[in-house]
Amino acid sequence: MGIVNVAQTVSSVTPLSIDGLWFRELSVIPTHGGPVMHMLREDNPWFERFGEIYFSEVLPGAVKAWKRHRCQKQNFAVPCGQLAFVIYDDRANSPSAGLMERLVLGRPDAYKLLHIPAMVWYGFSCVSATPAILANCADIPHSPDEADKIPANSSRIPYEWQ
Amino acid sequence: MGIVNVAQTVSSVTPLSIDGLWFRELSVIPTHGGPVMHMLREDNPWFERFGEIYFSEVLPGAVKAWKRHRCQKQNFAVPCGQLAFVIYDDRANSPSAGLMERLVLGRPDAYKLLHIPAMVWYGFSCVSATPAILANCADIPHSPDEADKIPANSSRIPYEWQ
Repeated sequence: MGIVNVAQTVSSVTPLSIDGLWFRELSVIPTHGGPVMHMLREDNPWFERFGEIYFSEVLPGAVKAWKRHRCQKQNFAVPCGQLAFVIYDDRANSPSAGLMERLVLGRPDAYKLLHIPAMVWYGFSCVSATPAILANCADIPHSPDEADKIPANSSRIPYEWQ
Repeated sequence: MGIVNVAQTVSSVTPLSIDGLWFRELSVIPTHGGPVMHMLREDNPWFERFGEIYFSEVLPGAVKAWKRHRCQKQNFAVPCGQLAFVIYDDRANSPSAGLMERLVLGRPDAYKLLHIPAMVWYGFSCVSATPAILANCADIPHSPDEADKIPANSSRIPYEWQ
């Protein structure tokens, strides 16, 4: 198991150590009254399919973990506050089986698009003093049938949430 | 010209006085650590097409107005803070030509989906003490070629932003 800290200044797609996991910088356009922040367009080469857009508010210090989707792929951005994400790969046949990543997304310095493949575990916690908003533009609509959950303190995943 | 105040408690789609303009309640699901908030799914009967999802932050008291799209239709939600929207119809052949609507969207009591048709003018201002986030899941990607802008204080639209 390894933990990789991700540099926060890159201009294009950044593959992470876990197979299928990547992030890329998103444009933040200064505008009178407040910035405009891009997330995803149908003509982005990395866009696959629109299934659903929803939000998850995370209160300061709160943890939402662990979750895994069997089919759905996640596209995350954090337009408000800051979230620390931990992603863990225990896929039997994955070239990155056993690896873990941790990275922080949010405002004002880490506004990125984080892509999470199916069948890896992920969780997140709010590390800002104000509530954070997770936006997820997933490739298929949410269905509880294809999602697995285990408790944040499960011994199955070698990570301790603060 | 008329200004209509919109009741905030309805369970399904609510057509407004301007032709093609409507809103509907969105689910806010209480969850440990903070609520999950629906916005739009590909299997919603009212979903047309995914073009782009982006955000616009609006600082307290700031006004962003006026804008009109010739082709793009807007689907707005406000997952953070509160925004007051004003929509004005000056379409020559519209059954609602000359009408204006004002409504507030945002947290915690007015989390809704607001649909704005093409060719009407709209603007919004942040009426919360903290920054608001506008999420727009539009039916086509943004293109400056199909958008018109006029200043917030234009005499063309009979509304005074505070």
